[in-house]
Amino acid sequence: MPRRAVCLLSGGLDSATALACARRDGFECYALSFDYGQRHRVELDCARKVAAALGAKDHAIAHVDLRWIGGSALTSAIEVPKHRSADEMGHGIPVTYVPARNTIFLSYALAWSEVLGANDIFIGVNAVDYSGYPDCRPEYIESFERMANLATKAGVEGSMRLRVHTPLAHSSKAQIIRLGVELGVDYGLTHSCYDPAPDGRACGGCDSCLLRRKGFDEAGLADPLPYVHL
Amino acid sequence: MPRRAVCLLSGGLDSATALACARRDGFECYALSFDYGQRHRVELDCARKVAAALGAKDHAIAHVDLRWIGGSALTSAIEVPKHRSADEMGHGIPVTYVPARNTIFLSYALAWSEVLGANDIFIGVNAVDYSGYPDCRPEYIESFERMANLATKAGVEGSMRLRVHTPLAHSSKAQIIRLGVELGVDYGLTHSCYDPAPDGRACGGCDSCLLRRKGFDEAGLADPLPYVHL
Repeated sequence: MPRRAVCLLSGGLDSATALACARRDGFECYALSFDYGQRHRVELDCARKVAAALGAKDHAIAHVDLRWIGGSALTSAIEVPKHRSADEMGHGIPVTYVPARNTIFLSYALAWSEVLGANDIFIGVNAVDYSGYPDCRPEYIESFERMANLATKAGVEGSMRLRVHTPLAHSSKAQIIRLGVELGVDYGLTHSCYDPAPDGRACGGCDSCLLRRKGFDEAGLADPLPYVHL
Repeated sequence: MPRRAVCLLSGGLDSATALACARRDGFECYALSFDYGQRHRVELDCARKVAAALGAKDHAIAHVDLRWIGGSALTSAIEVPKHRSADEMGHGIPVTYVPARNTIFLSYALAWSEVLGANDIFIGVNAVDYSGYPDCRPEYIESFERMANLATKAGVEGSMRLRVHTPLAHSSKAQIIRLGVELGVDYGLTHSCYDPAPDGRACGGCDSCLLRRKGFDEAGLADPLPYVHL
């Protein structure tokens, strides 16, 4: 039986590349996305296309309501900031941070991996060109992994050791894009924008668009996505 | 401003007592329950009554769908075992275990506490008369707490230190009941059964009923709940 892995898949550039890494490493991939009331729900359609294109064995979309918790521009009426400089992005935690989001997402991945008998979870977090989110840092991921191995049946029985893989942790956005292209990721299927136009086009100015566009520039590649503001 | 605490509240005996402990300790309490497709949804009505009776400042019920994950008698068609002996209960992890449930629940509590500016989470886990669930053990809770302090804005900024309180961790069921009675918990409002009858009465035979009834017996108190099987 092939080894199974649960792969968190937002529909964005990083998670698509992480899924491609899991496939490269020989895993049978179970992609997991979340409908959490995000204003950029178009990313879920992208996640479906990416999962299919990269040959995921199954793709689940979990409905989790984070809107009642509030506290983030991604799930409430708080405005998404645009055209911030690299210096502005480098300081503090932005309003697009969703409280404990990765912890909630990884917890669902943990539950599914336990039922699937999977020992491996892939997440596309990145500590270089990241947005200042605390739950993208390596020390956070390591700590989640330790907790996860105490949380489950198999952990207690000693029959498995869960690993949280972060294949992109130490790569720049440009390196991630070059890797993904090598692994056959079609970035035209992905979606990174926090605040897309009604027609689905990326805004071009939010932190996520700016990081993505800078990444393609530095990789010397053309971003296949159309943008509202070029 | 009073210190705020998020208190996980299932509607059962233990979580009601933990909420009473948070109130005793001077916290303004934000009760948090989950509608996760459990077969014993009657516990949510109990949670509402308990939260009101114990003066919670707010009570949120988060809708989280765990049924698609499967793997548990509480969220699927797997039968709930009845009338197991203490010896049977003492061995292995039962089919009523819901994969990663406490991790998912604590993750939501973490998200809400971050938005509320609360530094404290209360959970009624118990390592003495417990049901063999891995995510009720002290080492698991400590590990979640460590992870949580790396997961959040305030953790990174060093402006808060989150604590997960387990006031019942080292108490027997009888001790929990005596404590709750002292603190004014009305156990007639609580609900422990995994497999209640259509009229809401507790079955009397599932692990949770057996542990509860043994607790009242040992405490020398009468359980105010009606049971199908006495």
